Amino acid sequence: MTLIVALDPPAELSDPLTWSLEIIDSLRGTVQGFKIGLPFILSAGMRGVERLSERLGDAMLIADLKLADIGYVMSISAKLLAGAGVDAVIAHAFVGYRDALEYLKKTCDDLGVKLILVVAMSHRGASEVMWRNYDGLLEVALKVAPWGVVLPATNTALIRMARRRLGEDTRILSPGVGAQGAKPGEALCAGADYEIVGRLITLSEDPYQKAIEVLEMQKERMRLCG
Amino acid sequence: MTLIVALDPPAELSDPLTWSLEIIDSLRGTVQGFKIGLPFILSAGMRGVERLSERLGDAMLIADLKLADIGYVMSISAKLLAGAGVDAVIAHAFVGYRDALEYLKKTCDDLGVKLILVVAMSHRGASEVMWRNYDGLLEVALKVAPWGVVLPATNTALIRMARRRLGEDTRILSPGVGAQGAKPGEALCAGADYEIVGRLITLSEDPYQKAIEVLEMQKERMRLCG
Repeated sequence: MTLIVALDPPAELSDPLTWSLEIIDSLRGTVQGFKIGLPFILSAGMRGVERLSERLGDAMLIADLKLADIGYVMSISAKLLAGAGVDAVIAHAFVGYRDALEYLKKTCDDLGVKLILVVAMSHRGASEVMWRNYDGLLEVALKVAPWGVVLPATNTALIRMARRRLGEDTRILSPGVGAQGAKPGEALCAGADYEIVGRLITLSEDPYQKAIEVLEMQKERMRLCG
Repeated sequence: MTLIVALDPPAELSDPLTWSLEIIDSLRGTVQGFKIGLPFILSAGMRGVERLSERLGDAMLIADLKLADIGYVMSISAKLLAGAGVDAVIAHAFVGYRDALEYLKKTCDDLGVKLILVVAMSHRGASEVMWRNYDGLLEVALKVAPWGVVLPATNTALIRMARRRLGEDTRILSPGVGAQGAKPGEALCAGADYEIVGRLITLSEDPYQKAIEVLEMQKERMRLCG
C-alpha cells in the first residue's frame, strides 16, 4: 500500500485519543501506516500511544517527533517509544552521523524499530538553511542507511535526486499531499514509496471513502508516469 | 544566578520523577532553572512536568525538546507545555523563520513563554552540517529575536561570535560544562549568561554542595577574565 495517514488531531479537541482510534478503525485495510506527532504524545501520553498501537492491526505506527539531539538522548526516546509499540521513529538528518544518528541507528536496529530521516521539509523557512544543505543532508542519510527518508511531495525534483543518490532500497515517504498542495500520485511518480496524507482524509466526512479515492488517484497518476 | 541544571535521569531509573523532585529540592536557591528533555517527558508524562513545575519555586523550567517542525506543530506543543507550567521551550534555528519559528515566537509571546534557539551543538556530528551553517543559523536567530540561544561551552569561539552578532539582550545558555569537558566559568568568560550543568551535579553524592562548588568555580574563573 502506498498511503500513510498523518493523525494530527485538531488542536481544539479535548480527546485526541478517541478521535485517532475512530480514524484508525475506519481506515482498516486501506493504509500502510499511521504517523503521530509530538502534540498527540504530549496530550495523550505514552498510554495513548499504547492504545493506538494495540488497535492498529498490520498497519505501522510512526512516531514523528523529528528527533534532533545527541545520539544518547534520541536513543532513550526511541527505546521508550518502542516500549509503547511504535514501529518507526523519525529523526532529522541535520544533527549528523557521528555521536548522533550512528548511535540512534544502532539502537533502532537492536530494537527492531525502523529509522526514518527528514532530509528536506516544504515550509517556506526550509529554504533558509535546510535546502541549501540538501547535498550534505543526503550525504548524512547515505552514511546512516536508514529504513526511509522524508521528502516533500511538493518538490518532486528533491525526490528524484534522492532516489538517484540513495538507490532503490531506501523508502521515500512524502508528506504535503492534499492540504499542502501536491496531488495524490505525484510524489510516487517521482520515486516516492509512500505518500503521507493528513487533513484531506482525517477531516473528511467519510475518511474511508476519501482514502479509497486517494488510492485510486494515486493509481491513475502512476499509470500516466509509466 | 549563572547556573542551570539539566535534569537527565539515568536511563535505568524506574522513577525519574521522584529522582528529579529530590534534586530540585536539594538545589533550592542555588540555580536559575532546570532543563528537562524528551526522555523525561515521555516517561513521566505531562503530569510529571506539572509536578516539577509546582515544586520549583522561583526557578525556571525549560523544556528541551529541541522542537524542529513547522510552526503550527511547534506552537501546539508549546501551548501544551505552557499548560503544564513550563517557562521556556527550546527549538532548533535550523527549521528557519518563515512558517516555522516566526509562528512559534508569536505563540510563545502570547503565552508568556520564553523561546530559546539551538544555534550550535557540540557532538562530533554537529561539524557535518550544523557548524558549516553557523552564520545562517545566527541569521535565523537574529530574525526570530528569541529570549535566548544555546551554544556549546566547549566552543567558546562560537559564543564570542554570537555575542557580537546578537548583541547584549539575547541570553546565551551553554551546555557541555562538566562531563563533556568545559570548565565552569569558561563559557561565561566568553560571553554566555548561563552554564548548563548536568551529571556533574545531578550524579554527585551531594548535589547542593557540588552546585555551590560550581558557582564558586564560575566566580573564580570570571575574576580572571575580568
